[in-house]
Amino acid sequence: MNTNKKIAVVLSGSGVYDGSEIHEATLSLYAISKNGGEYQIFAPNIDQHHVVNHLTGEEMSETRNVLVESARIARGQIKDLTEFDANDFDAILFPGGYGAAKNLCSLAFDGADCKVNSGVEKVLKAMHAASKPIAALCIAPALIAKVITGAEVTIGNDAGTAGAIQVMGSHHKQAGHGEVVIDVKNKIVTTPCYMLDATIAQIGQGAENVVKTIMEM
Amino acid sequence: MNTNKKIAVVLSGSGVYDGSEIHEATLSLYAISKNGGEYQIFAPNIDQHHVVNHLTGEEMSETRNVLVESARIARGQIKDLTEFDANDFDAILFPGGYGAAKNLCSLAFDGADCKVNSGVEKVLKAMHAASKPIAALCIAPALIAKVITGAEVTIGNDAGTAGAIQVMGSHHKQAGHGEVVIDVKNKIVTTPCYMLDATIAQIGQGAENVVKTIMEM
Repeated sequence: MNTNKKIAVVLSGSGVYDGSEIHEATLSLYAISKNGGEYQIFAPNIDQHHVVNHLTGEEMSETRNVLVESARIARGQIKDLTEFDANDFDAILFPGGYGAAKNLCSLAFDGADCKVNSGVEKVLKAMHAASKPIAALCIAPALIAKVITGAEVTIGNDAGTAGAIQVMGSHHKQAGHGEVVIDVKNKIVTTPCYMLDATIAQIGQGAENVVKTIMEM
Repeated sequence: MNTNKKIAVVLSGSGVYDGSEIHEATLSLYAISKNGGEYQIFAPNIDQHHVVNHLTGEEMSETRNVLVESARIARGQIKDLTEFDANDFDAILFPGGYGAAKNLCSLAFDGADCKVNSGVEKVLKAMHAASKPIAALCIAPALIAKVITGAEVTIGNDAGTAGAIQVMGSHHKQAGHGEVVIDVKNKIVTTPCYMLDATIAQIGQGAENVVKTIMEM
């Protein structure tokens, strides 16, 4: 079913604390493949905001590149985000992880006043202008809400982030495990994933529900 | 179903070319969670053999630690392999990726004459002595075949690796996408995953088949 849908997946590194959340990214790719779709992975060719030791939670004195680290999740099959062309895809998907809030935009530091990476903004506006579905998991919906004001999204139930989304001029709707919020007008599809205290099975359900929804749009 | 089975998952870094294959690792955790089991992730606290740029395939002049990088897949919920106690687990699982053949043993460089990390060897022998299931994906079955000689495993159909397994004193059986080879006597369960040219949906099927098999043993 839903065969031949081609979905762009935008990563922000590899690891929840400074990049893409690995389970959300992998289970999104899995859901696309399992439901008969194809994906192309992209990431911006920029340095990560910082590198976090995922064992201790402490910052490391290293520099890593978002595109190079995202290539770990992509098994090398990845393109620079500057190569993205909205004509080539039926939909676009942003997994979560702090990378979405530290590398793709500055939400983790600046809240509602965050700046969005210019390449990411361009890609989002192109898909929105083409009236093609935009999906986002976990914290990534806040990034969408910043670029496409008036959007209705969910990041679960975190009051601070939900408040920031309202200040951005978008709307937040609470959602539970695996639940999907659909902004029909803007074709934006979001789910909380690890913004809630979730099992990996629940992440798989959220990713699958989002992917099926954008494939059917 | 299969509730309360507790499975140890041993990682070797984070990224197919120098660590654990991320899709195989994530989809194994997903299969455990989805089928009602629990997991605890482990990795040895050692330096990686090397660091590979996954965008270019070239070696990078960096040092990374296997436990620290594996913590990216584990979202920080990981233990040093020295803390492993066979009494605490119903089964153990090794995802693939070159890390299994570069960090957990030296198969990638020494073939059948490879040395196995002493901590990994100890853990495998403890589970085997306790007659508990041992699962391995992709290239990791060759590691098992080195430690538990006489084992019957699959790594798909790669002639060189299959030959090395025979030289080690174990047995190789060809298998296709998602197929599981079960060594009933030794309770060893293996599947080829990315040792074949596979889609991520096929990796999910292989991981699920292996996990279900060890949970039912």
